[in-house]
Amino acid sequence: MNFYCKLDNAWRESNSLVCVGLDPDLDKIPKHLKSRPHAVFDFNKQIIDATADLACAYKLQIAYYAGYAIEDQLTLTIKHIAENYPHLPIILDAKRNDIGATAEMYAKEAFDRYCADAVTVNPYLGGDALLPFLNRKDKGTIILCRTSNPGGNDLQHREVAGRPLYQIVAEMAVNDWNENENVALVVGATYPRELGEVRHIVGSMPLLVPGIGAQKGDLEGAVKNGLTESGEGMMINSSRGIIYAGDGPDFAQDARKATEELRDAINQYR
Amino acid sequence: MNFYCKLDNAWRESNSLVCVGLDPDLDKIPKHLKSRPHAVFDFNKQIIDATADLACAYKLQIAYYAGYAIEDQLTLTIKHIAENYPHLPIILDAKRNDIGATAEMYAKEAFDRYCADAVTVNPYLGGDALLPFLNRKDKGTIILCRTSNPGGNDLQHREVAGRPLYQIVAEMAVNDWNENENVALVVGATYPRELGEVRHIVGSMPLLVPGIGAQKGDLEGAVKNGLTESGEGMMINSSRGIIYAGDGPDFAQDARKATEELRDAINQYR
Repeated sequence: MNFYCKLDNAWRESNSLVCVGLDPDLDKIPKHLKSRPHAVFDFNKQIIDATADLACAYKLQIAYYAGYAIEDQLTLTIKHIAENYPHLPIILDAKRNDIGATAEMYAKEAFDRYCADAVTVNPYLGGDALLPFLNRKDKGTIILCRTSNPGGNDLQHREVAGRPLYQIVAEMAVNDWNENENVALVVGATYPRELGEVRHIVGSMPLLVPGIGAQKGDLEGAVKNGLTESGEGMMINSSRGIIYAGDGPDFAQDARKATEELRDAINQYR
Repeated sequence: MNFYCKLDNAWRESNSLVCVGLDPDLDKIPKHLKSRPHAVFDFNKQIIDATADLACAYKLQIAYYAGYAIEDQLTLTIKHIAENYPHLPIILDAKRNDIGATAEMYAKEAFDRYCADAVTVNPYLGGDALLPFLNRKDKGTIILCRTSNPGGNDLQHREVAGRPLYQIVAEMAVNDWNENENVALVVGATYPRELGEVRHIVGSMPLLVPGIGAQKGDLEGAVKNGLTESGEGMMINSSRGIIYAGDGPDFAQDARKATEELRDAINQYR
């Protein structure tokens, strides 16, 4: 099943637009887990098992695994999701980008090594650098468009032919890069008006929306501006707000509660 | 010693502007090595030992290690360079980028885990996303400016206030991001005129220049337009042209010969 289908199914089955971000910093996971040999995997596993019926996707931020040299625990985590919750799309948040043969290697990393359903990529190198990802028809390519950080303005807000650069990226995504119907975009919740502008440009293309929670995005504005006509189209990501909701023995239940609250908060605006 | 100093020393000691790119595709290394347990490391080690007196830096393309799940051989390779040729800067070509805490993790990956002297990064997320790299005063942050692929035009050539976007990146690099004097830029050899424009904007800032060899950049134009007034300032990268110069038992000597030829070809234009 391709990425769009998998995501459509997940939205319907879960009645949730929440994407749970598994970005577990070894320094921040509960004390009672830290001494275990696969502490991060154990942590992830409990979070996943407590939230899987409330989520439309999981997003794994590879930097947290690479920083600590625990790629093995990333693999274990992905395997756990794929085996137990095969209907849920797995997004590798890697923001990869390079040219030609090197981009092929990154596609291999995301899709063959880690078996992710989708990967985040950076558009600065242009369309030919995205091809090795886009050519994987069954896999999703999630392109950075408008990021949720203030510095996003430095390039993304530069005016190009009367429009900000991120809108040019959105236009290329929908007009030039989506031949295989497997493209999605990253648009931060911190700029709801701009989220609406992107939605207007890209039609029903899925959007991965970070910036809720720790980054204090405007949830109501983001949901109202980001939804498709069918009331879906968004993977609203929360990482720290969910995985660090509690830090005691009940952290997984705390994570469940936080996910449920976010799902409900989103659904009241749908 | 910080990155600029290390690079200055290496340019002088080697009288070479050649950066050797270690992007070894397991499928392409000589047959007689393939069955060894650390085939890629063995391959790299022989290339390094045959070229170290002819190079000003080594660039390791992490995608080739991540695609094959051989991060251990990346670590071994870097250790081999650091222990045997400590005067040569080690560049991790990772084109990383993300925001805040995640970018911190990528800096940790490049500088603490792999102990690289410099890492390549993507500017699309803006200055605040670069800070975790820039704040490592002793380490180099090599920012993508004008890439060597045709699709680089898609964004980098968009006109912003009368100038192409890549020139805006060059201006920000020199005016806003180089407080710690540790920034360099990636500018492809495939566009020598644009390389000259970037050199004009950034003064003596080091440039990492891919696109020679397999990508058929114009060497004379690139060298003449990219040099600083002191006749340095460039790390001219060749990967495939050097590491696949031969594929038999003498591949390392073939690599040495290719490196020597490139060094001499460059030096005749200095």
